[in-house]
Amino acid sequence: MNALTTPSQIRLAPSRMESGEQARLRVRSGEHAGPTSGLAPGYVQGNLAILPKDLAADFQRFCQLNPKPCPLLASSEPGDPRLPMLGADLDIRTDLPRYRVWRQGELAEEVTDLKALWRDDLVAFVIGCSFSFEEALLEDGVPVRHIECGTNVPMYRTNIPTAPSGPFHGPTVVSMRPLKPADAIRAVQVTSRFPAVHGAPIHLGKPELIGIKDIAKPDYGDPVEIRDDEIPVFWACGVTPQAVIAAMKPDFCITHAPGHMLVTDLKNSRLAIL
Amino acid sequence: MNALTTPSQIRLAPSRMESGEQARLRVRSGEHAGPTSGLAPGYVQGNLAILPKDLAADFQRFCQLNPKPCPLLASSEPGDPRLPMLGADLDIRTDLPRYRVWRQGELAEEVTDLKALWRDDLVAFVIGCSFSFEEALLEDGVPVRHIECGTNVPMYRTNIPTAPSGPFHGPTVVSMRPLKPADAIRAVQVTSRFPAVHGAPIHLGKPELIGIKDIAKPDYGDPVEIRDDEIPVFWACGVTPQAVIAAMKPDFCITHAPGHMLVTDLKNSRLAIL
Repeated sequence: MNALTTPSQIRLAPSRMESGEQARLRVRSGEHAGPTSGLAPGYVQGNLAILPKDLAADFQRFCQLNPKPCPLLASSEPGDPRLPMLGADLDIRTDLPRYRVWRQGELAEEVTDLKALWRDDLVAFVIGCSFSFEEALLEDGVPVRHIECGTNVPMYRTNIPTAPSGPFHGPTVVSMRPLKPADAIRAVQVTSRFPAVHGAPIHLGKPELIGIKDIAKPDYGDPVEIRDDEIPVFWACGVTPQAVIAAMKPDFCITHAPGHMLVTDLKNSRLAIL
Repeated sequence: MNALTTPSQIRLAPSRMESGEQARLRVRSGEHAGPTSGLAPGYVQGNLAILPKDLAADFQRFCQLNPKPCPLLASSEPGDPRLPMLGADLDIRTDLPRYRVWRQGELAEEVTDLKALWRDDLVAFVIGCSFSFEEALLEDGVPVRHIECGTNVPMYRTNIPTAPSGPFHGPTVVSMRPLKPADAIRAVQVTSRFPAVHGAPIHLGKPELIGIKDIAKPDYGDPVEIRDDEIPVFWACGVTPQAVIAAMKPDFCITHAPGHMLVTDLKNSRLAIL
């Protein structure tokens, strides 16, 4: 809020003041039903994966082995829908605007709460999301093309394997942001401070070195322009665990619907290690 | 020193044990007369520029305005050859193996001490050198091509102007190290910790964006191979102040001879900000 902000402007932009908890309560009540981008600025949002207990130990270890694509923020006790480390009152069954239910690896339905689906053997995993580091980049004056364009970040399957754990295996998925070289260097510095939300890039320049054949055709999300004075910069992406889960086709699992994340009580700034 | 090092091996490599002060005393006595690369590992070495007092204030400000190419480690009182912040007994007139004396911008002579040339109006400036961050890169497992090849680092004049101060102005000179992209990202992290010795790179990829027409033809130093899986990474270079001084052709100045640096009592590790 700058010095010229008036009380009426404050009322016009209520979400700028909103806490993570307030946003989550608006989601829980159904007042907010859409994507969570822009909700509760400054608060950590997370990817969700819910798996039966018999897969949970392998998935937990998969995240531990692959912290750049799968930075695990929290996991629940089996059957317990609470995640108090992310929010005292948080209920994973009701606090996301939209969920996807997968059966035998196929999308079975989208739902707005899990009350009818929750089971005593389910374990919830919340994984860091690039919203947090993108906020840090924007605050530092590093432009983010897909946000300027209002599109989804372009994402690519790479030839960089994840470390396997039990049935979980597959390629690392990366997100790409085109940057001027000096901004790319600054982006390495800024995002290195945030290991809990993918951290530093894992590649820059030369897409072909990580198995990307056509940078104009992302495997997920939307393409963005790369200008002559820019290089592509690649971060490990939270789509990796979803792609890995989809590939192994578990009998039953639940994820967030794309863009419909869990808003937590954690501040992005508290994820910075320095 | 690993567990298999024997006392006889220790005696075979005395410089591995040597402190900055011990190396400097060997230089002062004339026992060591050559380049200082490899002397007193772990200790900071510095570039030297000595200017008459009437130019010193502008040069001091030039360094302050351009901390990446000109990271000033210390400057002396006019006429005082000591720099106690870099070494209790340090005498700038005797402690480098070889000096260059410049008159009207031309190299007039090379000398092994300044006893006959020292004047009451001279001010010594010691500027950080890439040896310190190269040591940190090698310790981290990031390879440095020109060290592997035993050649001088390739350096280039760029189209990035320095901020002028009085008569001092000119382009930023950069040094280049080819790195695999993942190593380039790690090199940004490692060298960001060392702002007193040029700090993070200022450019990477696409040499043409900073006015380098032919990467195979450096303006100073030797060319190095850039392999297909590498990108060029550019750091601001301590040759910048020398090039700026040479360009303004002062009546009288003194620098170190290339590769013949000042060895200080500072530990490289103590320059790390984190």
